[in-house]
Amino acid sequence: MMLQNPSSKYRAFPPVNLSGRQWPDRAITHPPIWMSTDLRDGNQALIEPMSPEKKLRFFEMLVQIGLKEIEVGFPSASQTDFAFVRKLIDEDRIPEDVTIIVLTQSREELIRRTVDSCVGARRAIVHLYNSVAPVFRKVVFGMTREQITEIAVSGTKLVKQLVKQHPQTEWAFEYTPESFSTTELDFSKHICDAVSEVWQPTPHNKMIINLPSTVECSTPNVYADQIEWMSRKLARRDSLIISVHPHNDRGTAVASAELAIMAGADRVEGCLFGNGERTGNVDLVTLAMNLYTQGVHPGLDFSDIDAVRQVVEECNQLPVHPRHPYAGDLVFTAFSGSHQDAIKKGFAQQKPNALWEVPYLPIDPADLGRSYDAVIRVNSQSGKGGMAYLLEQEFGLSLPRRLQIEFSRAVQAVADASGREIAAKEIHAIFCSEYFDQTSPYAYSAHKMVEDSSSDEPVQIDITLAHRQASLSLQGGGNGPIDAFVNALGLDIKLMDYHEHAIGSGANAKAACYVELRLANGPTMFGAGIDSNIVTASFKAVLSAVNRQLVRAEQEVAVAG
Amino acid sequence: MMLQNPSSKYRAFPPVNLSGRQWPDRAITHPPIWMSTDLRDGNQALIEPMSPEKKLRFFEMLVQIGLKEIEVGFPSASQTDFAFVRKLIDEDRIPEDVTIIVLTQSREELIRRTVDSCVGARRAIVHLYNSVAPVFRKVVFGMTREQITEIAVSGTKLVKQLVKQHPQTEWAFEYTPESFSTTELDFSKHICDAVSEVWQPTPHNKMIINLPSTVECSTPNVYADQIEWMSRKLARRDSLIISVHPHNDRGTAVASAELAIMAGADRVEGCLFGNGERTGNVDLVTLAMNLYTQGVHPGLDFSDIDAVRQVVEECNQLPVHPRHPYAGDLVFTAFSGSHQDAIKKGFAQQKPNALWEVPYLPIDPADLGRSYDAVIRVNSQSGKGGMAYLLEQEFGLSLPRRLQIEFSRAVQAVADASGREIAAKEIHAIFCSEYFDQTSPYAYSAHKMVEDSSSDEPVQIDITLAHRQASLSLQGGGNGPIDAFVNALGLDIKLMDYHEHAIGSGANAKAACYVELRLANGPTMFGAGIDSNIVTASFKAVLSAVNRQLVRAEQEVAVAG
Repeated sequence: MMLQNPSSKYRAFPPVNLSGRQWPDRAITHPPIWMSTDLRDGNQALIEPMSPEKKLRFFEMLVQIGLKEIEVGFPSASQTDFAFVRKLIDEDRIPEDVTIIVLTQSREELIRRTVDSCVGARRAIVHLYNSVAPVFRKVVFGMTREQITEIAVSGTKLVKQLVKQHPQTEWAFEYTPESFSTTELDFSKHICDAVSEVWQPTPHNKMIINLPSTVECSTPNVYADQIEWMSRKLARRDSLIISVHPHNDRGTAVASAELAIMAGADRVEGCLFGNGERTGNVDLVTLAMNLYTQGVHPGLDFSDIDAVRQVVEECNQLPVHPRHPYAGDLVFTAFSGSHQDAIKKGFAQQKPNALWEVPYLPIDPADLGRSYDAVIRVNSQSGKGGMAYLLEQEFGLSLPRRLQIEFSRAVQAVADASGREIAAKEIHAIFCSEYFDQTSPYAYSAHKMVEDSSSDEPVQIDITLAHRQASLSLQGGGNGPIDAFVNALGLDIKLMDYHEHAIGSGANAKAACYVELRLANGPTMFGAGIDSNIVTASFKAVLSAVNRQLVRAEQEVAVAG
Repeated sequence: MMLQNPSSKYRAFPPVNLSGRQWPDRAITHPPIWMSTDLRDGNQALIEPMSPEKKLRFFEMLVQIGLKEIEVGFPSASQTDFAFVRKLIDEDRIPEDVTIIVLTQSREELIRRTVDSCVGARRAIVHLYNSVAPVFRKVVFGMTREQITEIAVSGTKLVKQLVKQHPQTEWAFEYTPESFSTTELDFSKHICDAVSEVWQPTPHNKMIINLPSTVECSTPNVYADQIEWMSRKLARRDSLIISVHPHNDRGTAVASAELAIMAGADRVEGCLFGNGERTGNVDLVTLAMNLYTQGVHPGLDFSDIDAVRQVVEECNQLPVHPRHPYAGDLVFTAFSGSHQDAIKKGFAQQKPNALWEVPYLPIDPADLGRSYDAVIRVNSQSGKGGMAYLLEQEFGLSLPRRLQIEFSRAVQAVADASGREIAAKEIHAIFCSEYFDQTSPYAYSAHKMVEDSSSDEPVQIDITLAHRQASLSLQGGGNGPIDAFVNALGLDIKLMDYHEHAIGSGANAKAACYVELRLANGPTMFGAGIDSNIVTASFKAVLSAVNRQLVRAEQEVAVAG
């Protein structure tokens, strides 16, 4: 068991003293204002931040989905972000009904640079933040409440002054007391009121107060209590848009956002599929589709969710989990026979344009451009997605990614032809027959090789191959064994890629080798070889690729003939 | 935009008419009874169900973690599950304080088979379910409320009768009105009361009433209202254990479980990392660690969460997402410079045995056996997490995963020492100096090799090495070049792993080789070599690993001296 008792190291989050709590009696009847921070909070949390091309692609997809508020970057902190904002404005890429948001810390030079980045935009929201929680005041800044308040107030004054110099842009303002969720409520109210006192919003020209759970640290009902408390007590409430920005450290960001909307929040900031620092921001896709299944149109279009998912996965270089609500590979799959049976009956009785009533399916997959999958389990098998995993776990074969893609077609062809599911052993058998056992027309028999790295002489090789009942003896030289082998073959081969790894260790270890090559300007194709000798494995892999190309070329000739 | 307005197809979930609601004023002060259904609900939702070996491995890990109630299968539906339950009992693999649970539908032959599967167990819970929601009554079964109630009642009678015949086992009983979350509350109460009337539980011999969100279809506060309603109204409340079994269709299963506990639930059924049908069951790891960070010991041990994760990923063949709370690869990583700065200050001021107060980190990663990662970003580049990506993109080096982890420490050491951020070229330079350029005490000079695969003779090799100003000439043989090389070296080397791949293609292609080896029972360590010849690259890699181990051993001796 864990050695340390957590009670001395962690403490329970203090409850909110909220009398006459309203939110548990409410339901969500219309969507919040959506704000995507994929290009800011999401992007800054990526192992590899997006290139300008990817950012643009993502921005255009967000517009397509229907986002009207898009945080496009942190221009004062990143030249890439500054250039991206300028590009959007200078190339007039922002639709009339879409507003961009730019984030800045409350420091003079950063604020100036931030306002500069937006000059010429039709409409822009300057988003100012500073951190206000006790741990930041004490540990990070060493400042009093008054000093922290002054940072926010002076920044707001500067933004107000600077934006007046650019009246051609319609400016709006957002203030975030960062780490709100761990801040004393009275201080959060104090600092937000001080900021709105400077900005002077009106019911016709509101400002945004954004209250993040920078770190999610309580059950979602406590966050809802905090939001309801603020919504009741903030000055100038009718001139404010209350926004939430939930993170997911406790796995309850979606619930926090939903309960916060019930508690009075007008607006939600998040990312598609929950990208963002650490455990991510709240997932806007799940929030929107949760509304949809309650009969409330979210105002966002996820009717082709697989296309959205593909762009997001490519830009973020992070996967969407197979069990991710609405979008995961497995969420419309029923494995259990009784589930399949009930779903089948539900589909049969479901009438067009009627209320959706199919057991186990909370939403019609067709509304997301998806379909229902029944998985038939025969003994113990897997499908396409797990192929590479199974080959690695069960047979030690670690396929390069492009080979995985190439190989999946072969498995799919067998699965389609047989109409059955394919077991792990069968997958391995298909791999062997497709790659390792491709020994016609050329089969490796033996080789002799002499390497002397101290001389300028190339590696010299004699190879013996079986070729259509004959035995071929070939010689060649090269700067390494594969090069010498390819030269000995005397074919027009361009080696594109090469991977080799051990299977097992010690005396019984073998090497599996994968080569990708092009023969006589044909398509690039993989071959694979296995042997206890790394050199022999690589020769077999080259022959496997050559044979696969030759067989395919013959088939094509036969078809054409 | 979506063509169909959802309001005609979906309807909002009806609110619970609950006066005097208690749960929003409560907090969770002690852990629920945990029940793992990984081997049942989780396993049945896998693309590749677990083999008996994997089930056993998973079972033993659950015991290790501290689970006291483990649902081990659906023995009447699966011969594999039946055999597994028998194996646990017959081989006496169930610890004294652990109770197994077996699920069954309410049909005579299935109940008989289920009870049979448990005969001889010290203690067992028979878990009976039938589906009770309107859509099931109408669409799937075509039955009235009375008929549905009769199914549950007659099944309970049969279980009661059968278990009396096996008094050597301590039997307990669990009833689940399946699809509870979409069932009229009065009917759920009616059927549960009818069942408990038959079973006749007592405060000393309670029965379990399990109330699942079979499909999650409302905000979590509504589920909490349902549980509070049931907890107040069920007959024989003091003789019942109220259990919840939340699914995650709306992404709020963790919140649903937490609010349900506040609303009166005594017990939670779920899976590690949220495996299970569709979007999965509630994640027991997140629930437990959420308690931990509130100072409440969950009674489960996740102090080596990476080890748990590894077993689960291998058994389920599903990944844990990089942003999964507590366990994901990225959740203790700070990408933003201001986050890194604040965390650094927090660590500096954090005193041992004091309350945990580090900004942005809701829990001490060390409590999970993990560590904090700062990711260094240069320009729009990334650092540690992206290191492997950069080395691959910019330099064509594709590091095996364990090498990535080993190498990250070297980069971190340089980053810490310099206090600066590290550019991609510098990362490459560190890699070269740490691996490719490790040529002391042994440097490769040349080799001569003779391979003749057609004879039984081993591969013969002569190698020339530079060693502390001297030139060494060594000979050896083996079943392949690396084996021969290692034998020629004459050191106590155990080769653990080997990877090699091409960089570039055509005449200028090189091979990069990575080996993991153990020298004289030291720690396993990587070496890397690069050369135009794949054989030479592998020799250099072996020497790199050997040299790194020898240098490290010398340093340790020096420190000890």
